[in-house]
Amino acid sequence: MALKVGVIGTGMIGQDHIRRLTQVLSGVDVTAVTDIDATRAASAAPEGAEVFATPQDLIRSDNVDAIVICSWGPAHEEQLLDCIAAGKAVFCEKPLVTSEAAALKVMAAEVEFGKRLVQVGFMRRFDADYRRLKAVIDGNTLGAPLMYKSVHRNASVPEGLYTSEMPLNDTLVHDADISRWLLSDEISSVEVRVPRRSTRGTDLRDPVMVMLHMQSGAIVDVEISVNISYGYDIRGEVSCETGVAALPNRPATVISDQYGIRQAIPEDWRERFIEAYDQEFREWIVAAGQGGATGPSTWDGYAATLVADAALRAVDTGAREPITMIEKPEIYS
Amino acid sequence: MALKVGVIGTGMIGQDHIRRLTQVLSGVDVTAVTDIDATRAASAAPEGAEVFATPQDLIRSDNVDAIVICSWGPAHEEQLLDCIAAGKAVFCEKPLVTSEAAALKVMAAEVEFGKRLVQVGFMRRFDADYRRLKAVIDGNTLGAPLMYKSVHRNASVPEGLYTSEMPLNDTLVHDADISRWLLSDEISSVEVRVPRRSTRGTDLRDPVMVMLHMQSGAIVDVEISVNISYGYDIRGEVSCETGVAALPNRPATVISDQYGIRQAIPEDWRERFIEAYDQEFREWIVAAGQGGATGPSTWDGYAATLVADAALRAVDTGAREPITMIEKPEIYS
Amino acid sequence: MALKVGVIGTGMIGQDHIRRLTQVLSGVDVTAVTDIDATRAASAAPEGAEVFATPQDLIRSDNVDAIVICSWGPAHEEQLLDCIAAGKAVFCEKPLVTSEAAALKVMAAEVEFGKRLVQVGFMRRFDADYRRLKAVIDGNTLGAPLMYKSVHRNASVPEGLYTSEMPLNDTLVHDADISRWLLSDEISSVEVRVPRRSTRGTDLRDPVMVMLHMQSGAIVDVEISVNISYGYDIRGEVSCETGVAALPNRPATVISDQYGIRQAIPEDWRERFIEAYDQEFREWIVAAGQGGATGPSTWDGYAATLVADAALRAVDTGAREPITMIEKPEIYS
Amino acid sequence: MALKVGVIGTGMIGQDHIRRLTQVLSGVDVTAVTDIDATRAASAAPEGAEVFATPQDLIRSDNVDAIVICSWGPAHEEQLLDCIAAGKAVFCEKPLVTSEAAALKVMAAEVEFGKRLVQVGFMRRFDADYRRLKAVIDGNTLGAPLMYKSVHRNASVPEGLYTSEMPLNDTLVHDADISRWLLSDEISSVEVRVPRRSTRGTDLRDPVMVMLHMQSGAIVDVEISVNISYGYDIRGEVSCETGVAALPNRPATVISDQYGIRQAIPEDWRERFIEAYDQEFREWIVAAGQGGATGPSTWDGYAATLVADAALRAVDTGAREPITMIEKPEIYS
Repeated sequence: MALKVGVIGTGMIGQDHIRRLTQVLSGVDVTAVTDIDATRAASAAPEGAEVFATPQDLIRSDNVDAIVICSWGPAHEEQLLDCIAAGKAVFCEKPLVTSEAAALKVMAAEVEFGKRLVQVGFMRRFDADYRRLKAVIDGNTLGAPLMYKSVHRNASVPEGLYTSEMPLNDTLVHDADISRWLLSDEISSVEVRVPRRSTRGTDLRDPVMVMLHMQSGAIVDVEISVNISYGYDIRGEVSCETGVAALPNRPATVISDQYGIRQAIPEDWRERFIEAYDQEFREWIVAAGQGGATGPSTWDGYAATLVADAALRAVDTGAREPITMIEKPEIYS
Repeated sequence: MALKVGVIGTGMIGQDHIRRLTQVLSGVDVTAVTDIDATRAASAAPEGAEVFATPQDLIRSDNVDAIVICSWGPAHEEQLLDCIAAGKAVFCEKPLVTSEAAALKVMAAEVEFGKRLVQVGFMRRFDADYRRLKAVIDGNTLGAPLMYKSVHRNASVPEGLYTSEMPLNDTLVHDADISRWLLSDEISSVEVRVPRRSTRGTDLRDPVMVMLHMQSGAIVDVEISVNISYGYDIRGEVSCETGVAALPNRPATVISDQYGIRQAIPEDWRERFIEAYDQEFREWIVAAGQGGATGPSTWDGYAATLVADAALRAVDTGAREPITMIEKPEIYS
Repeated sequence: MALKVGVIGTGMIGQDHIRRLTQVLSGVDVTAVTDIDATRAASAAPEGAEVFATPQDLIRSDNVDAIVICSWGPAHEEQLLDCIAAGKAVFCEKPLVTSEAAALKVMAAEVEFGKRLVQVGFMRRFDADYRRLKAVIDGNTLGAPLMYKSVHRNASVPEGLYTSEMPLNDTLVHDADISRWLLSDEISSVEVRVPRRSTRGTDLRDPVMVMLHMQSGAIVDVEISVNISYGYDIRGEVSCETGVAALPNRPATVISDQYGIRQAIPEDWRERFIEAYDQEFREWIVAAGQGGATGPSTWDGYAATLVADAALRAVDTGAREPITMIEKPEIYS
Repeated sequence: MALKVGVIGTGMIGQDHIRRLTQVLSGVDVTAVTDIDATRAASAAPEGAEVFATPQDLIRSDNVDAIVICSWGPAHEEQLLDCIAAGKAVFCEKPLVTSEAAALKVMAAEVEFGKRLVQVGFMRRFDADYRRLKAVIDGNTLGAPLMYKSVHRNASVPEGLYTSEMPLNDTLVHDADISRWLLSDEISSVEVRVPRRSTRGTDLRDPVMVMLHMQSGAIVDVEISVNISYGYDIRGEVSCETGVAALPNRPATVISDQYGIRQAIPEDWRERFIEAYDQEFREWIVAAGQGGATGPSTWDGYAATLVADAALRAVDTGAREPITMIEKPEIYS
């Protein structure tokens, strides 16, 4: 029996997920869509799918087993609460919500429901390179992780649309989430340093360097460069007590020519993480089919909200901004 | 509408393809199975699939749109001819057939049918590393390909079961097929040289070195080692007029520890080519859904048969054994 | 005419330099040695070399054109001043001196003399890998350098002898000097962060993470691990506006075996930097033969003293400790 | 006491060796030079060196302890015999001699003298990468060597001056010598295959593929490309019973930019082997100072002559051309 999925929000990312769910993956049917723009919803709807006027109608439909939320961030809170009220599994794109208060509210509802229903779209956790890296650390052959270097380089951002807050509240959350996951740890405080500015981004605060202090004492050092021109280059290296483990080069052809011996670098996040997105939904389909969720949870979305808030404070104060989390509800352990 | 697939042969590879078709891929249902061992067929059949007594019954069933052949090689000829007679798309595992005469017969039938129905299981053509390599060569930025080094190293083979003919008629066909495909060329003659023997395989003729002379004059030099212990290591490097293009290391975590800075090597062909198998079937499902085939064809299976035969002759004669092909039917161009 | 060199201090490093000057390099003779331990001096003296009772006697000898100082740090100030008074070229091992006041005194004497006589033993500047890296940055094809990651990993340190100050006043100076040189910049302030402690060094503060804020605004981020067991691993990566340049792996044989595809990592600093030491002296011999010096100067030794002092303060305060330098004398520009 | 060296032949390579002996290395003086062009000899002579009218005069001079021969190949036989008659150590650039008969004659003279005096200029044996590779093989951790791939790629050759024989009698000798040395083996026969021709060299037979069959049965497969445009790229990979060992990339800066992640490739043999030449002479100076020789011997020059002859025959016959060596004199074991 295929999982009947309703998609809320049929913009670029929603359309891409509809393509994935209908053309790439098995065990799933997109039976319903909705969007604030009804025309867009209609044109994005796959054959046989019903177009709903509102997210609420879609969520409550008997023809919908599970929901994928691709609407804009401020709408997530209400939609998530509706899904939980309906007792339906839901995949929610980043950000989970846009405030700590909202995260706590969604978490409280899910805890009251009694088990996980929500999965958040931190797709890096489904990337094969990151998974192998985590397996090495968890295998503990190198001792405890003491430092982690996360490098997040983006070729370019749209001038004007991308603001100086975004490296911290939009880009950093990926590094923060993957750090928590790789190190099996929580972030206790955040520092931000602003190096010499790149001349490529005019007024943009770019690059930035962020330090995440983990509860274990491990320090994560993040380089975020959003206008580095040469490609989308994601790096990660964990320094442990007796060895180091790092993400490899991406598997591009090794060419020897007038430019040297070389391998291409991905152009953008689509190229880099396309398999991770597929895998993310592959595993969600299985979990949602059993009425639950897997991978990144409401708790992880809550943590991401806290770290983005703390980073924004830290860039203003120059200080080490603490993060205080509530006690972790049992359903997330 | 999902493609209704019948699987002939439910041994190890057949079971793996059933798993792939039912659990990994979309747009396909396994509706029928058969095996010479009826019990094995019954236990391998997914829920709802019919177990047929004979391949002929399965092929003719109205509930079967397309066929996957995983029986043993000597049975392929008749099963392929039945599929073509029924006008149904068929995926056939290697070897296509076991003699030149059989290959010609299947090809004649398919040509008479008027379009391709048969796809052969040379999965390397669906591997992302090989595809990127071919794209570089086809892009022609490095000039014409003049030499190709193909390295085929296998950790170990079952003593007794793996004979000295097998590197040439079982293993070599992968290197031969990928060489023809990468270089867009045909093999005109074959030489075999037998180096100092590895002491790991007792009586086995291992390693062997094969030279494939292509019609363009390009020379392919193949190293086949089947007992090299350290892993399953597939390499390929094309020397062109102004540059060189090679397969990269597999994307394993870069570890620095007491053994140096290092990346793991795949253990076996399953680990190395699992994504290629998935992709092979993904594309077959689309092509078969349109009543046709894609990728490696009967012509390619025919070429593989010829090269294996020539290599076996060459190891005996020590000479350069020519390969003569019939004129290429238009449906394969 | 070979340069006649007198060596002050014939401990381990002094003996190694005597070997280098007599057996490896051309254009130089070791004509004089001295040590606080006269017996050790006598046994280290190459054939024909005179053993002096005091550094002062050696420095003033007509049979000595230039001096190599390998005594312990606190003795350097007086010996350097004597060399300058004698108008003789002098190579001084790290540290130049042990206090800011001493550095200023030596610098004042050299400035009064009117040209450089002193070369300090920051051998990394003579390493081929670092030189190629600097050439890329200076070539400016990647835009301005914005961040530099310096990784300084040491296999082990002698328990008890190596104290928690030493990563900052002994080890860090190499990273600080190479950062100033690579980026053609000065350090304006220093921060130190102490991650989760390695269990390998018992009480030792290890690893440490240091941030060097450069006058240009570039940030250098230094990882110092002194007990990491797996080898002596020196890394450096410069993030520029449109690209990144990094030190390569050391040129070790690429082995594929049961541990993966791998390259050995140097065991210690001797193995890593032996050619750099040779080159350092090769160039010094030429410069000293002309009565001068090349490469790292008294100014660089002064900068190193300041950064070590600032780092030690920073680890206590947790704050960003500023560095204030005097105006750079013309002879160092 | 410095070794007094006389240099015969002051063309390009002779001048480079004079530079090396006078400016780079210690323990040696160039006291004498000679050339068929007396003016060239005079201008190449370092200060204080005597210019001799003939090689014979130079060889017999009391002011010459050891000789470096950089004249053209046909002159080597007589000069080597004169050196041996004088009982003086001699370094001879490639080729040792130009015929098997000449090699046997020089060998006979040296054997009669009773110990090695002659060292031949196969500088690759002094290259650090090759030495590490040999250490791995000799260490025997990977089992016996069964196959060796030697790749010899040259950016370009002067049109007209470089003939189709030269890849076999000039270029191949390096691969042949290094193969014998790496595998501690002798060549028993040679085959040559000529792939599709590069369009870059007009009439030149380029590339060529050579197989060297070793006495142990190991097969060496050599790719020689002399016009490949992108650089001077020397590769070597030994396939052993349980693993593989290969030369690494050269230690160039790792750059990430619009061309990918990349390392520069050497432009020519000077860049690639400059340190090997230095080391070759460093060790020769020590051996010659003791009246002997080290590294490649007359025996190795003899072997090189045989393989070049056999390769030239093989390209004409297309057959496997055997090599027959005399019994190895004891002084070469």
